[in-house]
Amino acid sequence: MIILGICGSLRKDSFNLKLLRAAENFLPEGVGLEPLNCGELPLYNEDLDGAAKPEPVERMMEALRTCDALLFATPEYNHSIPGVLKNAIDWASRPAYESLLARKPAGILSASKSFVGGARVQAHLHQVLDSTLTSIYPEPEFLVPQAADKFDAHGNLKDPDTTRRLQKFLYGFVIWAGRMRSSASNRLKNM
Amino acid sequence: MIILGICGSLRKDSFNLKLLRAAENFLPEGVGLEPLNCGELPLYNEDLDGAAKPEPVERMMEALRTCDALLFATPEYNHSIPGVLKNAIDWASRPAYESLLARKPAGILSASKSFVGGARVQAHLHQVLDSTLTSIYPEPEFLVPQAADKFDAHGNLKDPDTTRRLQKFLYGFVIWAGRMRSSASNRLKNM
Amino acid sequence: MIILGICGSLRKDSFNLKLLRAAENFLPEGVGLEPLNCGELPLYNEDLDGAAKPEPVERMMEALRTCDALLFATPEYNHSIPGVLKNAIDWASRPAYESLLARKPAGILSASKSFVGGARVQAHLHQVLDSTLTSIYPEPEFLVPQAADKFDAHGNLKDPDTTRRLQKFLYGFVIWAGRMRSSASNRLKNM
Amino acid sequence: MIILGICGSLRKDSFNLKLLRAAENFLPEGVGLEPLNCGELPLYNEDLDGAAKPEPVERMMEALRTCDALLFATPEYNHSIPGVLKNAIDWASRPAYESLLARKPAGILSASKSFVGGARVQAHLHQVLDSTLTSIYPEPEFLVPQAADKFDAHGNLKDPDTTRRLQKFLYGFVIWAGRMRSSASNRLKNM
Repeated sequence: MIILGICGSLRKDSFNLKLLRAAENFLPEGVGLEPLNCGELPLYNEDLDGAAKPEPVERMMEALRTCDALLFATPEYNHSIPGVLKNAIDWASRPAYESLLARKPAGILSASKSFVGGARVQAHLHQVLDSTLTSIYPEPEFLVPQAADKFDAHGNLKDPDTTRRLQKFLYGFVIWAGRMRSSASNRLKNM
Repeated sequence: MIILGICGSLRKDSFNLKLLRAAENFLPEGVGLEPLNCGELPLYNEDLDGAAKPEPVERMMEALRTCDALLFATPEYNHSIPGVLKNAIDWASRPAYESLLARKPAGILSASKSFVGGARVQAHLHQVLDSTLTSIYPEPEFLVPQAADKFDAHGNLKDPDTTRRLQKFLYGFVIWAGRMRSSASNRLKNM
Repeated sequence: MIILGICGSLRKDSFNLKLLRAAENFLPEGVGLEPLNCGELPLYNEDLDGAAKPEPVERMMEALRTCDALLFATPEYNHSIPGVLKNAIDWASRPAYESLLARKPAGILSASKSFVGGARVQAHLHQVLDSTLTSIYPEPEFLVPQAADKFDAHGNLKDPDTTRRLQKFLYGFVIWAGRMRSSASNRLKNM
Repeated sequence: MIILGICGSLRKDSFNLKLLRAAENFLPEGVGLEPLNCGELPLYNEDLDGAAKPEPVERMMEALRTCDALLFATPEYNHSIPGVLKNAIDWASRPAYESLLARKPAGILSASKSFVGGARVQAHLHQVLDSTLTSIYPEPEFLVPQAADKFDAHGNLKDPDTTRRLQKFLYGFVIWAGRMRSSASNRLKNM
């Protein structure tokens, strides 16, 4: 199983990037996490969204096609989704209801410096992924508030509670994503 | 009075661009609308958001500094704000609560092909601009549903009802923005 | 299969009530729709939410326990969920993550007089039901804009397009809800 | 100046009720806070919303008419507005755009047991009050996370940081509400 890790921040020392790296370490054997680089995408322009798309977009599409699940990790910018991440979703979401995002299992993590922990970006991202018919892991949201206190100087997750919660989240997420994938392929076979 | 027109779509034939052009024609003498090009901005990266910013960002900052009001016109992408527009706001919104967006009078228009007319992008954009302490024109939202029927082959607004509503919106908006600006400058003088 | 029909309006001539009645007629044999009366519930008060609850609440709990799926039909009040409906959800949603709403399959319809068709109430209701871990039918939202034109003098759905869309929605919804129910009971058996 | 205090919880020991009581103590001389009892209102029903309204509704309307500003204090129920509070707003919000809520200055406080502090209820309440054209105090939102730690056994606010923030919020709020009120009455005189 390949999980595509999608980080909403381009900052080199992003807490959400560190969270994805921590997640990678907790995945069971046979499950890999591959990062998507949202930073190389051009700004969405419908005029460029034809049969031939800009090369970084084609690369993202290929990554979306071959992965089994998505794992978002994103900060909250101005109470909502970072433009960087929304831009990637805008490219990936066409055509409506039949895009590579439709029916794809997805989990959402958010880390933020504030005590709110990304509660609002999760709400907006949920709404956006509902509209693309993406399947969101149906468990309580995973928030990391006051993220600056949760990682050590080397960028490793040091907070025991967050670590436990992340392991539990990923354990359930991988089982659920596998079940979603196989029920989807069964349904295709039966058609 | 200079109004900065901010379009959420980069498409050459964007309905929202046409809406901004229509708006320009209805402004009273002495009020100008200058377009902001969101398409030349790089994707937001906090590592690049230092004392010296990328040149297109500096240009946007200068435009924000010198304008008296903002007029957004935006489509709805996946039930939310286009990444293109959110990216511009992410650059413009720092530092929190004291950015060039704070206390700036702003109006929001949205045109969309669907019958929903951008109701959801307006809700999200409201939340985002609330978080940046931008002053939003306190009138019912201006939605243009089924936008494809509202413009002629030359891109001119042809729908009488939309035209009337837009004129009324702009009339009130310009008066309100002028009042906001002068009460702000009075408050500065009294300090 | 028993579907609990939950109407967000208490108005006798509510469009959403009419929509639920139209839905009832389109359900396949063996599937029944039972109405929930949100109007008899007291306003939520945690002090009354103990082991013994007010009688109308107990009745709702029993209806939630025995039904197989939920079908909401709601107007949009002030861009959000009617207090009447939110109040019913507040009672039904305890204890958090383990309430009778958790894992229950649910569909959402909305009719409104405006052209927006309830797009915003659907967004808020989605967020609320995400928080209660309710399983929402993963298809594009079902909106009935300009509802006053869609029903005849006897309250029957007369608009052919809305009728077709509703039939299609219900057809898919019933199959999906049945699948959700049986996969849930399989999982219980395997425990 | 009379501020109407509107609590979103009916619980006797509600943290938000305690927050309103704390607020009352910090108001300058000449400014009073009167509580609105949302708990005596019937559930909203358009059929009852005629020329003669249910008596508790009439009482609320009178309180809204005579007050100068609103101060909401609300918990977050299921990531959104408590039905109790939304129900009060539904009654108060008619007719659309011209209700007693339109142009009324309002502040929003939220206390919650969780670390999120009501960030999401504030977002939804903002959207709802935007739709009623209520004027919301344009400052960063006032959240009280982990509210159980912030009050003593007698229900008094004991946390120094929350106390300081609340005093500052109210100080600014009262000045702003007074300015809104007098600019509104000036505008009426000039008409």
